[in-house]
Amino acid sequence: MELKHVVIVGGGFAGLAAAKALATAPVRITLIDKENHHLFQPLLYQVATSALSSPDIAAPIRKVLRRQSNVTTLLSEVSAISLETQTVEHTYGSMPYDYLILAAGAVNDYFGHDHWEERAPGLKSLADALEIRHRVLTAFEKAEAVDASERASLLTFAVIGAGPTGVEMAGALKEIATRTLNDNFRNFDPSKARVVLIEGGPRVLSAFPEDLSANAQMQLEKLGVEVLLNTRVKDITEHGVDLENGDAIAAATVLWGAGVKGSPLAKTLGVELDRRGRVPVGKDFALPDHPNVFVVGDLAQCVDAKGEEVPGLAPAASQGGEHVAAQIWRSIDGKDRQDFTYLDKGIMATIGRSRAVAVSGPFKFTGGLAWLAWLFIHVLFLIDFRNRIAVIFEWAWAYVTFQRSARVILTREKKPVVAG
Amino acid sequence: MELKHVVIVGGGFAGLAAAKALATAPVRITLIDKENHHLFQPLLYQVATSALSSPDIAAPIRKVLRRQSNVTTLLSEVSAISLETQTVEHTYGSMPYDYLILAAGAVNDYFGHDHWEERAPGLKSLADALEIRHRVLTAFEKAEAVDASERASLLTFAVIGAGPTGVEMAGALKEIATRTLNDNFRNFDPSKARVVLIEGGPRVLSAFPEDLSANAQMQLEKLGVEVLLNTRVKDITEHGVDLENGDAIAAATVLWGAGVKGSPLAKTLGVELDRRGRVPVGKDFALPDHPNVFVVGDLAQCVDAKGEEVPGLAPAASQGGEHVAAQIWRSIDGKDRQDFTYLDKGIMATIGRSRAVAVSGPFKFTGGLAWLAWLFIHVLFLIDFRNRIAVIFEWAWAYVTFQRSARVILTREKKPVVAG
Repeated sequence: MELKHVVIVGGGFAGLAAAKALATAPVRITLIDKENHHLFQPLLYQVATSALSSPDIAAPIRKVLRRQSNVTTLLSEVSAISLETQTVEHTYGSMPYDYLILAAGAVNDYFGHDHWEERAPGLKSLADALEIRHRVLTAFEKAEAVDASERASLLTFAVIGAGPTGVEMAGALKEIATRTLNDNFRNFDPSKARVVLIEGGPRVLSAFPEDLSANAQMQLEKLGVEVLLNTRVKDITEHGVDLENGDAIAAATVLWGAGVKGSPLAKTLGVELDRRGRVPVGKDFALPDHPNVFVVGDLAQCVDAKGEEVPGLAPAASQGGEHVAAQIWRSIDGKDRQDFTYLDKGIMATIGRSRAVAVSGPFKFTGGLAWLAWLFIHVLFLIDFRNRIAVIFEWAWAYVTFQRSARVILTREKKPVVAG
Repeated sequence: MELKHVVIVGGGFAGLAAAKALATAPVRITLIDKENHHLFQPLLYQVATSALSSPDIAAPIRKVLRRQSNVTTLLSEVSAISLETQTVEHTYGSMPYDYLILAAGAVNDYFGHDHWEERAPGLKSLADALEIRHRVLTAFEKAEAVDASERASLLTFAVIGAGPTGVEMAGALKEIATRTLNDNFRNFDPSKARVVLIEGGPRVLSAFPEDLSANAQMQLEKLGVEVLLNTRVKDITEHGVDLENGDAIAAATVLWGAGVKGSPLAKTLGVELDRRGRVPVGKDFALPDHPNVFVVGDLAQCVDAKGEEVPGLAPAASQGGEHVAAQIWRSIDGKDRQDFTYLDKGIMATIGRSRAVAVSGPFKFTGGLAWLAWLFIHVLFLIDFRNRIAVIFEWAWAYVTFQRSARVILTREKKPVVAG
């Protein structure tokens, strides 16, 4: 009997978990990703803020799966999916599937203001992180070379959106300014750099309990971050951010942490998407009329067996990927599908050195304890053993010295990029 | 009395050594570089071959000099030098100097075949290293996706020039193929990848004694590298390398290690250059008619007090930079200039894990001992303490596991680049 062919699109937490869970299943698997690496997205802001280098949080997918002989990994870009012919169109041709696991993830959402993308990069990929790192480091470099009149805007950093990504970036930026760049400049004091965190809602970290939001805001303000709540963005221009309340923030660097939407690949399925571009799926992550097609991870809009929407978090993606793998295995064995139940172990966000908030069930943590928990859990779940040791070393070094190692800007052709 | 203004162009070994040697001199210094980092070029091939990440061998210049209060560091590109008005033209304007130290280094030399540059990248900057890394990793990735007919060319790597850079890259490529990528592919055996080292002269490492050249060639061939001597390149095409002897090597990846020339900035001086684009200078590194203008490092053509040409090596650049700093100090003190004497501590090249050659005075080393010496000396001279520890860790890890950590390819805009 020929083995069933499982095609997995995307090597993020969901796709990789599904591939691993099928290691001993009677299937052959092709995992396609447009990048060669699995990315540990929860630490992406640390690459953006020069604390870690790219290889610390990115493991080659084919290396992670090298001992799993039923998986072929392809670096290739999927452009369309045909449910009718049961094929995936990608860079090197058309590939038929028996089962499809679509785990293509999310992209930055500018809510229709597409011209904001160039002015305010978001943080979804390594390329995004290196672009942000480049803009931040270059702003400080330029501030050393120009007149005082131009310097104020160069030393103002606006972060839009106070979810975990925005909070983490704002805290890290203020630490770079006050600690890392100490003594580095002759014409200005980097610790005077302004970091402004702009949030449309009434509090930071809206997914957290209210008292933790208040605590996080207090920790941010202690660090020197200016937090603007109930403040909506009207436009992002070359000069900075125009607010709906009429104010304008002159900032050479604007960063976007206000929202994501499903990968555009979802549109090629020909099914109705939700308003955030995600694919509504059944409680087993399958498409309603296509039981052999699963959408899982950030691209899926799934209500689990408890009636709760599965959140767009790494643990939810991993659990989802494993659930989908189990369903494929059950189908091959002729068994019924099972509903997914998300096991919520909690959420956490870090604000800076020894500053964080965390909640797990009835337990809430703030400050140093939350930060230690954050550190421990993130290192524990780093995908690759070598990365774990490297990251512990980088962090220990940074903690003792306040230095950030990945401060390399490099010039590539006309446009400068950063390395690391 | 107003302090004399020393402008240093270039933060490589020569420029940085000069700046440091002037730490307590009665001068104010501006160091201008078009990159924000000092690059430890002797280890650049390790970034190209995924063993190290960029921050391991690149330290921000302003960080290195942060405690030296008489230096202002500028990230800016110098476009021209006017000896007449004693000014340097750069991105942010025109800067007058009392003393100029031009240490802008070298670029790849394609001997008039400028169209070869795109096809066969050389190895002079971090951008070069990441471009090479990208091409090598992508060739293996493509080989997994295409038909067997296209695979042979993708799995052939041609390295042109068997100097230290070419030898180091060829050895590292063969190790990646045989060791690092083990088990990573399903459609081919990466250890079958060909690495062809093409040298126009009669032996590899022509700067070394003949017996060490022979030993290096033997070590390369043991590793599986094909060494072609007395073989001249006629053309580099999209298919690979055409040789003057009529043979053609079908290779998707061609790397250039055959030569360098002085930075194009030298042309703006208006003085006669040598055939490798370098500036002929006196034994004190000053321009013959401009005693306040020094050219030092790879950009200088200098015959030292012993009548020997100063080689284009990192130790020579460092010694030269220190000598120039001393001459400026002497001028300010009203003393005569001194001639430079290059102190030759020896040369070494590494071929792979536990394989190297080294010569120091009457002593010659090969194999494991030379490799340990190479390791020790390169770590010792790494510019930044943190980098040293990081590099030792990376190397120890790689030695034990055969893994290379920096295998990240990332897609940026249309053109994919690599990170790390």
